[in-house]
Amino acid sequence: MAEYCHKPINSRSAFAAVANHRCWREAGHPGRCAEYPYLEHLRHAAPKVAEKIKRDATNTTGAAWDSEDAGPNRMLRWAAGLDDQQLLQYGRDFTKLPALIRQKLREKAAPYDDCMEVAQALSHATYCMTNAPDPSPDVRTYLEERFGPIEKGTAKCIICLEPLDFALFAQARRGAAELDTAHKDPRSHTPGNVGFAHHRCNVAQGEMTVDEFHAWIEAILRRRAEDA
Amino acid sequence: MAEYCHKPINSRSAFAAVANHRCWREAGHPGRCAEYPYLEHLRHAAPKVAEKIKRDATNTTGAAWDSEDAGPNRMLRWAAGLDDQQLLQYGRDFTKLPALIRQKLREKAAPYDDCMEVAQALSHATYCMTNAPDPSPDVRTYLEERFGPIEKGTAKCIICLEPLDFALFAQARRGAAELDTAHKDPRSHTPGNVGFAHHRCNVAQGEMTVDEFHAWIEAILRRRAEDA
Repeated sequence: MAEYCHKPINSRSAFAAVANHRCWREAGHPGRCAEYPYLEHLRHAAPKVAEKIKRDATNTTGAAWDSEDAGPNRMLRWAAGLDDQQLLQYGRDFTKLPALIRQKLREKAAPYDDCMEVAQALSHATYCMTNAPDPSPDVRTYLEERFGPIEKGTAKCIICLEPLDFALFAQARRGAAELDTAHKDPRSHTPGNVGFAHHRCNVAQGEMTVDEFHAWIEAILRRRAEDA
Repeated sequence: MAEYCHKPINSRSAFAAVANHRCWREAGHPGRCAEYPYLEHLRHAAPKVAEKIKRDATNTTGAAWDSEDAGPNRMLRWAAGLDDQQLLQYGRDFTKLPALIRQKLREKAAPYDDCMEVAQALSHATYCMTNAPDPSPDVRTYLEERFGPIEKGTAKCIICLEPLDFALFAQARRGAAELDTAHKDPRSHTPGNVGFAHHRCNVAQGEMTVDEFHAWIEAILRRRAEDA
């Protein structure tokens, strides 16, 4: 696998010092440094999908941190991993949050480097969906070197294992997007553990790992057969 | 099955005219009329459980009707069935609500009589749980005449089919009660269609019927076996 350039990249993020923003192009690349070079093609072909990949890879979901009344909000995963004392130095007072919200945010914490690799993995999975656009040659090379061949129709919901159609990105039902970024283990944000799932599958999985979910539904069907 | 007294009962509810509140004791009963005579024992033995049965049988869940900002709220199921014009006469303006909330509230609508029979069915199921208190003799007779023998250990989660323990009523996890009132068909609030379920099972079922949920998880395990 090609090595990374990893030259520092300037960031205006309040948490830049925690993240160690760097260039993720190949070592010795021509032209400018870039943090998400493999998103360049999707940024033009499907800008909302590119935005979602970046957002889900780097941000926590569904928890309010700056106000109980603000409703679900997001924060950078590497910031969520700081302790209360460190967060106070950044002007964020976690101690005011309900214990449950704090716990959920902390469970979604992840270091910057993991988030960068998750964004790569999600990009690869996106191109493997049925009806996905074809990646540009340089993006294909970049992602295939890291995650293997890009073949349409091979990306599946990591929970129900149905093939996923790229068109689902644009669909919503009853106010919720059809496609979620999901985790085989909800408490681990790493490239091998992350993929896409139908929203209803993600909800059904809840706090279980995918393996636990599958064992759970197996037990349900066993009881159903016994009762019949 | 014994017939009901069904003498009118005064109610201070704003929607009393829609409900037709009546006595649900047996015809020719001694003493006072009562709307929930079979809850008399639980009201003393487990007041919060009696309150939950009455509330879940007669109220919609998880939708705000008086303000978008008020967060999840409840309203009487027989009121949720009124059309926008009728609700305006009761001082409730549904037209201000988001379409999705209106739709969800309307799906949870049910006539008063169905709600009364649901409360009976839930009471019967409660006494059939492991470690449930013994009903008083008159409550036992009342419920057994309508729903069959009360035998502890026979009440199961209607979704995962595990026996339910009465102690679950007092338990909560991550801010949600462990036990939900659940519907085999989420759009039908009738005694044969209602029972108790673990909260996580209820969430996993979502908008599917229990039969659809079981067919869905069967398909997941089939795909998993094929992929292995």
